[in-house]
Amino acid sequence: MYRTHNCGELRIADKGKKVVLSGWIQRVRDKGSIKWVDLRDRFGLTQMILEEGVSDPALIEMSKGFGREFVIQVEGEVSERFSKNPELSTGDIEIRPEKIEVLNESKTPPFTIEEESDGGEELRMKYRYLDLRRPPLQRNITLRHKLLQETRKCLDGFGFTEIETPFLIKSTPEGARDYVVPSRLHPSEFYALPQSPQTFKQLLMISGYDRYFQIVKCFRDEDLRADRQPEFTQIDCEMSFVSMEDVMETFEGLIKELFKNVLGTELPEYERISYSESMHRFGTDRPDMRFGMELVHLEEHAKGKGFKVFDDSERVVGVVLEGGSSYSRKQIDALTDFVRRPQVGAGGLVYVKYNDGELKSSVDKFFSKEELRSWMDHANAGKEDMLLILAGEANRTLFAASELRLELGDRLGLRKKEEFKPLWVYDFPMFEYDEEGKRFNAIHHPFTSPKKEHLALIETDPGSLLANAYDMVINGVEVGGGSVRIHKRDVQEKVFKALGLTEEEANEKFGFLMEALEYGAPPHGGIAFGFDRLCSIMGGSESIRDYIAFPKNNAARDVMLNSPSMISEEQLKELNLKVRG
Amino acid sequence: MYRTHNCGELRIADKGKKVVLSGWIQRVRDKGSIKWVDLRDRFGLTQMILEEGVSDPALIEMSKGFGREFVIQVEGEVSERFSKNPELSTGDIEIRPEKIEVLNESKTPPFTIEEESDGGEELRMKYRYLDLRRPPLQRNITLRHKLLQETRKCLDGFGFTEIETPFLIKSTPEGARDYVVPSRLHPSEFYALPQSPQTFKQLLMISGYDRYFQIVKCFRDEDLRADRQPEFTQIDCEMSFVSMEDVMETFEGLIKELFKNVLGTELPEYERISYSESMHRFGTDRPDMRFGMELVHLEEHAKGKGFKVFDDSERVVGVVLEGGSSYSRKQIDALTDFVRRPQVGAGGLVYVKYNDGELKSSVDKFFSKEELRSWMDHANAGKEDMLLILAGEANRTLFAASELRLELGDRLGLRKKEEFKPLWVYDFPMFEYDEEGKRFNAIHHPFTSPKKEHLALIETDPGSLLANAYDMVINGVEVGGGSVRIHKRDVQEKVFKALGLTEEEANEKFGFLMEALEYGAPPHGGIAFGFDRLCSIMGGSESIRDYIAFPKNNAARDVMLNSPSMISEEQLKELNLKVRG
Repeated sequence: MYRTHNCGELRIADKGKKVVLSGWIQRVRDKGSIKWVDLRDRFGLTQMILEEGVSDPALIEMSKGFGREFVIQVEGEVSERFSKNPELSTGDIEIRPEKIEVLNESKTPPFTIEEESDGGEELRMKYRYLDLRRPPLQRNITLRHKLLQETRKCLDGFGFTEIETPFLIKSTPEGARDYVVPSRLHPSEFYALPQSPQTFKQLLMISGYDRYFQIVKCFRDEDLRADRQPEFTQIDCEMSFVSMEDVMETFEGLIKELFKNVLGTELPEYERISYSESMHRFGTDRPDMRFGMELVHLEEHAKGKGFKVFDDSERVVGVVLEGGSSYSRKQIDALTDFVRRPQVGAGGLVYVKYNDGELKSSVDKFFSKEELRSWMDHANAGKEDMLLILAGEANRTLFAASELRLELGDRLGLRKKEEFKPLWVYDFPMFEYDEEGKRFNAIHHPFTSPKKEHLALIETDPGSLLANAYDMVINGVEVGGGSVRIHKRDVQEKVFKALGLTEEEANEKFGFLMEALEYGAPPHGGIAFGFDRLCSIMGGSESIRDYIAFPKNNAARDVMLNSPSMISEEQLKELNLKVRG
Repeated sequence: MYRTHNCGELRIADKGKKVVLSGWIQRVRDKGSIKWVDLRDRFGLTQMILEEGVSDPALIEMSKGFGREFVIQVEGEVSERFSKNPELSTGDIEIRPEKIEVLNESKTPPFTIEEESDGGEELRMKYRYLDLRRPPLQRNITLRHKLLQETRKCLDGFGFTEIETPFLIKSTPEGARDYVVPSRLHPSEFYALPQSPQTFKQLLMISGYDRYFQIVKCFRDEDLRADRQPEFTQIDCEMSFVSMEDVMETFEGLIKELFKNVLGTELPEYERISYSESMHRFGTDRPDMRFGMELVHLEEHAKGKGFKVFDDSERVVGVVLEGGSSYSRKQIDALTDFVRRPQVGAGGLVYVKYNDGELKSSVDKFFSKEELRSWMDHANAGKEDMLLILAGEANRTLFAASELRLELGDRLGLRKKEEFKPLWVYDFPMFEYDEEGKRFNAIHHPFTSPKKEHLALIETDPGSLLANAYDMVINGVEVGGGSVRIHKRDVQEKVFKALGLTEEEANEKFGFLMEALEYGAPPHGGIAFGFDRLCSIMGGSESIRDYIAFPKNNAARDVMLNSPSMISEEQLKELNLKVRG
């Protein structure tokens, strides 16, 4: 038996007990005649004491060889500490060892294993198993564990059935690229890894399972951006006989439960706004609702007055910075630099503010004081405030204004980590036009149902269709999204056609689904949550990687395993494949 | 709102309520002036009644178009049935519809959707979503759901942390073939799908997580046998600071809990026998313990008496068939045919039994009555019994005898479905010699620790080493297996060497693990359970396919999706691959 107790559980009540502990040496403090060794495991830290003239001299001798991260087993008596440590749950006691065994030695780790490590990211990725010993990562992995258990408990309680769907499926590239898996038994043929279990969960509704869920890995072969992973985890759900309203109600219930049971936080009521309202008020479909500073639309006030920049713009959009009238030239320049960053993409920034009771602006050459005042009034901006204005093509300007709003919210400290403001955004457009491909793409996915009353326009004006689709947004982050699906074959056919698929292509890729829709498919809808993202939001971090035990780097590489890697010629031959020149 | 209640919940207490139900039409019974329509969902069946002169004539007219599996929504009043059906939970009531909407029509399904279907297997696989509507599959999927929830609940309670390990890993073919995934971002390089998360769970022990679990998909590209799936689900677990004994105790605890909480069955105490004892007593390492009929070893009695068949055999092994003295010539011939089947592989079968008080045998030309009697006595066979004897090369003979024992157990009705007899088999050999490859293979896997006291023989006599490995067997089926792992680099190096890996190969494939063993790896061990198999045993079925929502067929093909399939030339090009001629 390696231990009678773990390193976090002994208390003063255990005084006098003979115990066996096993763990890692956190540190050795040597005060000459007394030596303390801190033993660590994931449950805590327990101190052992070696005292000249009291402890077995052989043990004292042995302890000279101890190094950081050695694994040892200690048999001894629990005794009361002379000077207690109230910061430690085991701080009242220490162990007086009678026997010590070194279970394994350790080389000196390449970085410190503490709350904050001195190791760089690449090094910590290579030795991920050592980084995972650090307390912040242990907390993250534990949070994830709890969230996994609570999610399933809650969905089980809601009457959802957990059903595993296959990983080796069929390649039907729509949108993102599939990872494919060559088949050896069927030469020249490939499976694909799922980007999501979408079609399977719909089939399960057609099978009558009524409510399905799964916490499942999904795969997307994308050109990687920071903090995207080629494999990621989804909470995937589907329900039968539901409207959009039913789905939203069910899943805000889930997320409220999770925040309550895992974090002890009561989420406030969800706001619900349509996509078009969200774009109008915030310039984005995932607004951070922890603060106001909604966009001010100035086209009517600012266009047609001879200022060419505004006159040539589709949109002229303002954001009011409360208390901004005191901003210096330098501070305003910094904001201008911010909006000009390629990630934000604006051409420049116009300001209007009071200075000693006088209205000042970077465009006062082009506009009268009355005109400027009418903007300030329209924007509800007072003497202490500053109105910041962006102009240009509609989408870019709204995006830049939304980024500026977030930046200003950060500066004013309005985006508090411990505050959570959840939101539903609904009624997304069905399609968006892809200028490059010269065709319409599905904004959600091709199985999303259009609003019934819009369906008639699908051939003549697909861009105008709204979908029964919804996103859950918390603090400006999209945590989940879903839709009510198409449950009739004729509608599905029309949507595939609008997306530019020929009848043949549609049948080749999704024939099984279209056929299934003819055998009594019930109305159904669902949602998928990004589980890694949900962990990171609840854990208060920006990075999903901190919540994944073994993540890949930004080049989709596992630097610990050194993967991907070459495979043998024999393996390639068996798969009937050749690497190109 | 599509429904106020599901189809399984209305009772006589609901009489008079206005309700809305949605579901599938199970059947329509037309008695002229009265028509009953059974509405079905996964919760049950509710009858609705349409009565000439009472119901809205438009609804009666509409119902003429109803077909099997139509999806309809019914609004109406709950009324008491005239003739109640005590077999149905909703059998006291029926609905008098005021409004009916057809939500979706259905073509006539290609097979009947009932307890027993009239559809052949291939057809039911193609329309799996319809097969999944049948009650037996619904029960199986529900059992699996419960088992998933209970397994996690139990392991969480035991202090295990659920940690997800990656799916895109590194190809390190040892034993079975890997499925590989070409990388687009790193041309000519491949990921592999995990055959198990073995190395990751060991790293997690090195990271100090102490107890890990995961219910996870694994992948093996094997030449398929009946009832094997290329992707399968494992309950994967690992623990630190444990001996073989600790692991066995923990996981028999898990399985007992699962049987209790899911089936309401108390498992009896686990027997524990060593591999060599198991082979000796039963001829197999996964004996069915629901009955006796242990093997009788007759070499000392039967060899060296001039009967060449026995004299040339390594083993002469008997099984006693109780009450077998009454077996006719024809029945004995049938048993001989059984052992001669290629799946059993014996050359023939010798019998000895009493006939009218006289000993009769197929070999009485070669042996005296006294000799035959001494065999019967040694086998504890009485006047009513028959001794059946197999002889030949050791492994083949033990295997055939074990198969014969199972067959006889079946014939005597000793293998009862509702009885469960769990067992641990432990102390497996470390290596087995592969005659074809002229080298030793790991019986469990290369990370299994050999018995400490045997390690000295690893270079001179690897075949003699025993491992700290164990299998859990229930009713003759291996449901799980595991081992205490190697936690020291030097031992791991020796094992790789014994397996014929050069130092370079070992480093290329498992360098990360060997390095990790140098940074304070604790003693650790674990187990993995075949989850599909566990479901099928608990559900009382032979086939794991019945417990997988979307299984592949014996050729690893998904006939519903038609996968694997060709991918586009464009996809191949992006992956830098070519299909060979």
